[in-house]
Amino acid sequence: MKTKITELFSIDYPVVSGGMVWCSSWRLASAVSNQGGLGLIGAGSMDEQVLREHIRKCRQATDKPFGVNIPLMNPNSEKHIECVIEEKVPVVFTSAGNPSLYTKKLKDNGIKVVHVVANTRFAKKAEDAMCDAVVAEGFEAGGHNGKEETTTLVLVHQIVRSVSIPVIAAGGIASGEQMLAMMALGAEGVQIGSMFAVSRESSAHPAFKQAVFSSKEGDTMLFFRKLSPTRLLKGNFFDMVAMAESRGATKEELLELIGRGRSRKGIFEGDLHEGELEIGQAASLLDEEKSVEDIFKELKEGFERAKNRIRQID
Amino acid sequence: MKTKITELFSIDYPVVSGGMVWCSSWRLASAVSNQGGLGLIGAGSMDEQVLREHIRKCRQATDKPFGVNIPLMNPNSEKHIECVIEEKVPVVFTSAGNPSLYTKKLKDNGIKVVHVVANTRFAKKAEDAMCDAVVAEGFEAGGHNGKEETTTLVLVHQIVRSVSIPVIAAGGIASGEQMLAMMALGAEGVQIGSMFAVSRESSAHPAFKQAVFSSKEGDTMLFFRKLSPTRLLKGNFFDMVAMAESRGATKEELLELIGRGRSRKGIFEGDLHEGELEIGQAASLLDEEKSVEDIFKELKEGFERAKNRIRQID
Repeated sequence: MKTKITELFSIDYPVVSGGMVWCSSWRLASAVSNQGGLGLIGAGSMDEQVLREHIRKCRQATDKPFGVNIPLMNPNSEKHIECVIEEKVPVVFTSAGNPSLYTKKLKDNGIKVVHVVANTRFAKKAEDAMCDAVVAEGFEAGGHNGKEETTTLVLVHQIVRSVSIPVIAAGGIASGEQMLAMMALGAEGVQIGSMFAVSRESSAHPAFKQAVFSSKEGDTMLFFRKLSPTRLLKGNFFDMVAMAESRGATKEELLELIGRGRSRKGIFEGDLHEGELEIGQAASLLDEEKSVEDIFKELKEGFERAKNRIRQID
Repeated sequence: MKTKITELFSIDYPVVSGGMVWCSSWRLASAVSNQGGLGLIGAGSMDEQVLREHIRKCRQATDKPFGVNIPLMNPNSEKHIECVIEEKVPVVFTSAGNPSLYTKKLKDNGIKVVHVVANTRFAKKAEDAMCDAVVAEGFEAGGHNGKEETTTLVLVHQIVRSVSIPVIAAGGIASGEQMLAMMALGAEGVQIGSMFAVSRESSAHPAFKQAVFSSKEGDTMLFFRKLSPTRLLKGNFFDMVAMAESRGATKEELLELIGRGRSRKGIFEGDLHEGELEIGQAASLLDEEKSVEDIFKELKEGFERAKNRIRQID
């Protein structure tokens, strides 16, 4: 399949795996790249040394292009930037921050740069900063999320009309049919998070994956609107946050409730009681662990099914 | 265009206009039906006599099929049901309530029945109640909304896989590209609200329409999760509700804040200060008043553009 995104990254299929904390290791990233997509390593849960190790292992596991996602709010982000430059990573996705911060530096070092946005204003900012593409990530996405709460269906349509760089759709996508739907809106590819977060190659804990598989509609919700909106999966921590917000908890109270290290506990250690479980709304579409290879097969089949559907409407 | 929805309603184009309070008069409904879609009269803001008048005027204004939307939580709903049976309305959409309540009665009187749902459980309930189709309405929709907050992109995908009756996608749709995207997911048609709510033929007040045209991303939000989730447009009432909820207002405090007659004030009388402004997330995609005829032209053009886009991906 050829789109501006497959051409930009020199990949075979316009699917990017999100660079998710505690999930997106070298193992997941290389598996996705080996299937013809673009695998991302998630630097958000790594220090510089761990990131370097993952980049090197990823390079051993695949000769295809891969990338690193760097959340710019992370205290290690400057070191992460240095690291990807030294390691000559071909593609970097930046998120949660200002795209004009490092884009030039990365591009001067021959790195393709994509910025993740949740509104048109930042999409234009990313274009002005000379990013090669943007990810338009909607309300459905797991973990950190935009303040506008614009859904993928509305956001992608809006951003495609507002910038001329390629748009990658993200948030709520877990099938080939949805992939085609996004390309109908003008997206040149998709970024998929949740489905890869619970794939066989993800580093997430089996208990976390199981919690996702047994979740139903309405089992993820957006919280922390007073701090930075974050989508969580139902569980003990979810209930605590819901109760606190319902009684009007302040920023300070919420910060104290979050504490430290909860996402590691929840996603990596599988502590469903104390941990923070971050996953997207697509969780309710997922019901068993699959290999990255099988996921790609399914995506391709779903895409073809949707294409045939559209062909028959005339 | 032929789909199960055009065949079910004997219409030319699989577009339904939402039956919206204070917007969906005989004028809007007949204009939509005259363009080949299915126009709905919104009974929610009418008593029985007003509804009867609108049905009769609609019949004078079009010889094409049209329908009535009846919210089942409305105190007048039983009288509305009697009225549509007496007036031999060909199609009824029921919403906000139990689909098993009136479906049999309506169908026994030769009326096609569609129920509006926000989750799979109610879609199956509607199918069991022998509804002819369901509207899968996502988080993006204006006014009353589902507790699960599932977006249209996720919900439509989920419901299409769960029932065998035709699915009409709703929530956030304001273009032909989005229409094709929904049909890629397996929807057989779309219901469009916001775009028709601010069309020339809508009974909404010009000041309300103008507020929608000047709105931007993030300017509609979901409130009243403690009562019945409702999407509102920014303004004075929006700010009051946001403040109350932020400090943890109780159900009782929220009920008092809502008071009575606010949606009439906001939408029909154009009181942007005291009124409740109900509109969907698609508001940010709308920027000027258009006739229903022009809207249909645009939808068809957008649909063809998206189709060509998909054709080129190979």
